[in-house]
Amino acid sequence: MTDKLIRQLHFLAEADKMKSVLRQTYITDKSRQENSAEHSWHFALTAMTLYEYCGLDGVDINRVVKMALVHDLVEIYAGDTPAYDVQGNVSKEEREKEAANELFSLLPDEQAAEYRSLWEEFDRMETPDALFGSAVDRLQSFHNIYLSGAHPWIKYKVTADNIFKRMAPVKTALPKLWEYVEKVVSDGVEKGFIQRSTI
Amino acid sequence: MTDKLIRQLHFLAEADKMKSVLRQTYITDKSRQENSAEHSWHFALTAMTLYEYCGLDGVDINRVVKMALVHDLVEIYAGDTPAYDVQGNVSKEEREKEAANELFSLLPDEQAAEYRSLWEEFDRMETPDALFGSAVDRLQSFHNIYLSGAHPWIKYKVTADNIFKRMAPVKTALPKLWEYVEKVVSDGVEKGFIQRSTI
Repeated sequence: MTDKLIRQLHFLAEADKMKSVLRQTYITDKSRQENSAEHSWHFALTAMTLYEYCGLDGVDINRVVKMALVHDLVEIYAGDTPAYDVQGNVSKEEREKEAANELFSLLPDEQAAEYRSLWEEFDRMETPDALFGSAVDRLQSFHNIYLSGAHPWIKYKVTADNIFKRMAPVKTALPKLWEYVEKVVSDGVEKGFIQRSTI
Repeated sequence: MTDKLIRQLHFLAEADKMKSVLRQTYITDKSRQENSAEHSWHFALTAMTLYEYCGLDGVDINRVVKMALVHDLVEIYAGDTPAYDVQGNVSKEEREKEAANELFSLLPDEQAAEYRSLWEEFDRMETPDALFGSAVDRLQSFHNIYLSGAHPWIKYKVTADNIFKRMAPVKTALPKLWEYVEKVVSDGVEKGFIQRSTI
């Protein structure tokens, strides 16, 4: 076997650690936290399933699916940073950059550059693929949080405004889903698991 | 929201149950069994990463990735059938067909047909996409079993011949990986976690 192939097999073994990165979101039977590998699969499946509602021009669903598969890999070394954890998000960029250097360097140069650039593009949320991807990523979490007891919303005392701000990419990238976002937030405020915004 | 969109959101919620379908394979830190959602993600990532070694003509990697994402969905109702469980494999086809009827009918007709046909194509192992997909699916399991203590090989007293037969798609679809298969089997026989074939 070539050194290149050995490196790729080693990377795939290292990627297995995504299955132990826990997120704040629970799985829908409420038995335990979701991990980042499961989330990545569910995000990719959601992208495929809801692509017909994409409100942006020029989105390549195949690239979005690939982004979904690699978008959280840096968490193997950087850990998951909960969306509503203000403190954690201050150091997130630096931690994830270091993690990316470590993780992607396991791969042969060309593939390392490809995966790193998919991750960076996703993270910058500027291109149509990254904007659609981010909307789906957030929608998958939102849908699962709602179905599994709203743990992170309760834990971080999240307000309706916090959620609308975080879910904003859905408005343009999945406009037909915005009604669902509003419905869930309104239900959450009514039932008390989302804080009413004070402003 | 349209009835169609509500059905798709319900399907995505139901798909979450893949995270509770346990496989015989362990995750590489040996702490617990892998589930089918994580496996599907890892299979898709492996397909992307090793596609350059594909030995078949006419393989569309984007279709293979989509197959990876849906190939185990029927297990939500049919359960995982371990590869080396002879008894379980007798009833597998019937159980999975019923599960497919139940699961895919949650989706709007056109999408139900698309996902079902991806699953059926994968399962029949005849087209280049399905042959490459099957080889990657089996390689992901093989690699993880080897790295995590060989549980299913020990449990089912699997022989070298059993493994070579199961891994046969790798020979043509990922020929450069065959050396790795042989190396692992030879190591397994030597260390006693794979049975020496008697014929």
